[in-house]
Amino acid sequence: MQPTYVTELTRKSHDLSRWYTEVILKAQLADYWNVHGFQIVRPYGHALWELMQSRLDGRFKATGHKNAQFPLLMPESLLTKEAEHVEGFAPEVFWVTHTGKEELTERLAIRPTSETLFMTMYAKWIDSWRDLPMLLNQWCSVLRAEKTTRFFLRTAEFQWQEGHTAHRSAEDAREETMRMLEVYRDFVESDLAIPVVPGRKSESEKFAGALETYTIEALMPDGQALQSGTSHFFGENFARAFEITFQDQDGQRKHVHTTSWGLSWRTVGALIMVHGDDAGLIFPPRVAPTQVVIVPIRPDDATVVEAVGKLQGELGARFRIEADWSDKSPGWKFNEWEMRGVPVRVEVGPRDVKNGQAVLVRRDNREKSVVPLADLPAAIQATLDALHLALFERAKADRDARTSRADSLAALSATLKERPGFVRAHWCGDAACEARVKAETGATIRCIPLDEPEEPGACLVDGKPSQKRVLFARAY
Amino acid sequence: MQPTYVTELTRKSHDLSRWYTEVILKAQLADYWNVHGFQIVRPYGHALWELMQSRLDGRFKATGHKNAQFPLLMPESLLTKEAEHVEGFAPEVFWVTHTGKEELTERLAIRPTSETLFMTMYAKWIDSWRDLPMLLNQWCSVLRAEKTTRFFLRTAEFQWQEGHTAHRSAEDAREETMRMLEVYRDFVESDLAIPVVPGRKSESEKFAGALETYTIEALMPDGQALQSGTSHFFGENFARAFEITFQDQDGQRKHVHTTSWGLSWRTVGALIMVHGDDAGLIFPPRVAPTQVVIVPIRPDDATVVEAVGKLQGELGARFRIEADWSDKSPGWKFNEWEMRGVPVRVEVGPRDVKNGQAVLVRRDNREKSVVPLADLPAAIQATLDALHLALFERAKADRDARTSRADSLAALSATLKERPGFVRAHWCGDAACEARVKAETGATIRCIPLDEPEEPGACLVDGKPSQKRVLFARAY
Repeated sequence: MQPTYVTELTRKSHDLSRWYTEVILKAQLADYWNVHGFQIVRPYGHALWELMQSRLDGRFKATGHKNAQFPLLMPESLLTKEAEHVEGFAPEVFWVTHTGKEELTERLAIRPTSETLFMTMYAKWIDSWRDLPMLLNQWCSVLRAEKTTRFFLRTAEFQWQEGHTAHRSAEDAREETMRMLEVYRDFVESDLAIPVVPGRKSESEKFAGALETYTIEALMPDGQALQSGTSHFFGENFARAFEITFQDQDGQRKHVHTTSWGLSWRTVGALIMVHGDDAGLIFPPRVAPTQVVIVPIRPDDATVVEAVGKLQGELGARFRIEADWSDKSPGWKFNEWEMRGVPVRVEVGPRDVKNGQAVLVRRDNREKSVVPLADLPAAIQATLDALHLALFERAKADRDARTSRADSLAALSATLKERPGFVRAHWCGDAACEARVKAETGATIRCIPLDEPEEPGACLVDGKPSQKRVLFARAY
Repeated sequence: MQPTYVTELTRKSHDLSRWYTEVILKAQLADYWNVHGFQIVRPYGHALWELMQSRLDGRFKATGHKNAQFPLLMPESLLTKEAEHVEGFAPEVFWVTHTGKEELTERLAIRPTSETLFMTMYAKWIDSWRDLPMLLNQWCSVLRAEKTTRFFLRTAEFQWQEGHTAHRSAEDAREETMRMLEVYRDFVESDLAIPVVPGRKSESEKFAGALETYTIEALMPDGQALQSGTSHFFGENFARAFEITFQDQDGQRKHVHTTSWGLSWRTVGALIMVHGDDAGLIFPPRVAPTQVVIVPIRPDDATVVEAVGKLQGELGARFRIEADWSDKSPGWKFNEWEMRGVPVRVEVGPRDVKNGQAVLVRRDNREKSVVPLADLPAAIQATLDALHLALFERAKADRDARTSRADSLAALSATLKERPGFVRAHWCGDAACEARVKAETGATIRCIPLDEPEEPGACLVDGKPSQKRVLFARAY
């Protein structure tokens, strides 16, 4: 691997976009691939993604979902079965036309999402009310041709999970839609330490084929929003297109009601952007691939070797740890591991060994403390907890400081220039007004927040009555 | 889901091939997809595969490997960089030619395997001897167009893992090749309870682009071999094609030596075939998605409900368990769970509760024992261990009974007719003799077993001298 010189890192505060790309390359989270828009996830980035997957998968299983694996390819005729859906995805589809030297009689689409695959099988598998709800999820990659791409945030191929469920009633399906939105909110806030606004998408922003789309929206440090997870209620749309019916307890044949919900490695991009600082990454402890790095201050000293060896055993049982025995200087190592975002550093030198202590350094504020070796596990746990909370609180304060109100299009436009971020504004519900805002300011309705209080007002464009404010922002 | 009538299951002993397909469909391990050769893995099958992945992944990490994620697509020019490699795969490649309505300037191959992707990046990432060894693995699916396909055993898209490593010396790379072969042998024998023969492939059977290919070969009940995992030594072949060099400690610029190794969900097919019986699946306990099913004999009896509830708590902490509260009869449930291959069944009726006991039934031999509730966890563990061992021993005895020797082509041919299986025979090393055997009997050299003793002999085709016997068989 090429050596990484931390000093070369662009300051985050100076140029977020450059910092973002640089820190990903330098920390070896990902690299470019020689097909436009594709990325390679390197081991450090993959370890992070594996931990995120595992924490999310546990939540899916706890809410009764099971994993399955559906194929990568579908016949063109299948993709086109639900009209709105295909219209939404057709321009981005990668098409397979040949195998070996043979031309296919019907070309095959690489999945841009898998509603049509799941629904085809649900039509076969579901027959009675006893078969419901059917609660499946899959972890996979999907492909969508994208013009402008960025590591993790927008890639032509992305890893994600997609849940697809079928229910007896619209109420059950709606409940599922909201349950999974809450699972996402809890995951992103509790594990990634990123505050989000849960809400409903407007008609123009909802998923192709959905009746209702819900989202959690995070705010990046440059004031742009990032959609971090979505949950869709389809009603009977797909059930009718795919003829998915069941015999209910009353003997009637009825259509099922379906949902889907997805969260991708965009959230990796979100946590990099939200938490990092000028020195590099800061990983939220619950998903940090390495939670603690031990840096021996004199790696050639026998007492240090022995003490660190003992610590590795003790701490390794409770935390994800690494000990850096490389022949670089301690200062180089401090920079390197800070850049890589490891939450806690433990320094052990000959004097520390003699005094039965170690130096503990917290990544975000570089707070140092000298801790007796016996107290180290508890001190590390407390530091990880405090760091998690501090990351969340800082991100929330940043977001709140970037959340404004505007009561006219001119005010919205001015606010987005002065202090880019979330802007809460009244909107009458008319798509034309929404389009006008987008055309003039580049901002879209990120969501109609679930917790937004009722407040009579006037639409920022046409002045028509509005019952609550919605959330505008420019977005990734 | 459609009801599954166990009684309809074809007998394994009567028609292995039909039994295999039926049991997979009935136990809902997998289903057909509407593109030729693709399958859907349903939750029960996926739970099995997840457990297998987790046990194998643990072994990879313990031997110093890290996971990464490489893209699905590569430019055509990249696939063709290593001449033998592309020749081996080109006829099976799925080609992407368009995105949306745009034709691509260079068409893209869906990965049939990822050597060329890893090697492209290794050329960029490897610079010094300090960067070596580079030990990466990825879990993914790969696509190869196949004419004749079967659930798990041969599918156009298959899930697998592929390890790709780069080393300083040929010796290091050879060691890695053999280390991973041993990891596979240990996994398949210790976790899947399938005995295998580790050995080297002949020149004609080795992987496209490899200098040496090693394999573990299992024997199916119909006497056909199944290649269950392979490990390849590439020497400098890929390093030269992709210009992967490093500066060694002596200051010289040298080519790395590379390996790759893969194991796929074919092994799911192997364990189904090897262990199942006329009543259905028998899952080896270490990877069985459900290790213990509790069947309440009178689910409406309050004492039974209470006792089973308590058992669920106690047993759930140690084993992967299910309790079947459905409204079917106990007999129906017994059949159903036997068909689904659950290793241990626990029956609890009102009389059992009164006597503080439960009935424990072992899947393979249906041995019943009455066990005091307090002893149940230990009794279950002992039964799982005994079942694992019995499965392995039975499979080994079956295989040994189907392993013969032959000293002429006529004898080989006759043996394969009378008692299909492994045939150990002398072979001079000449590809023409190997081809002749294949043309006349359909058998190929599965491997040159590592543990085959030296034994001077004469090639079964041309009578030329041979130093040891090799393993012939027809294969899946």
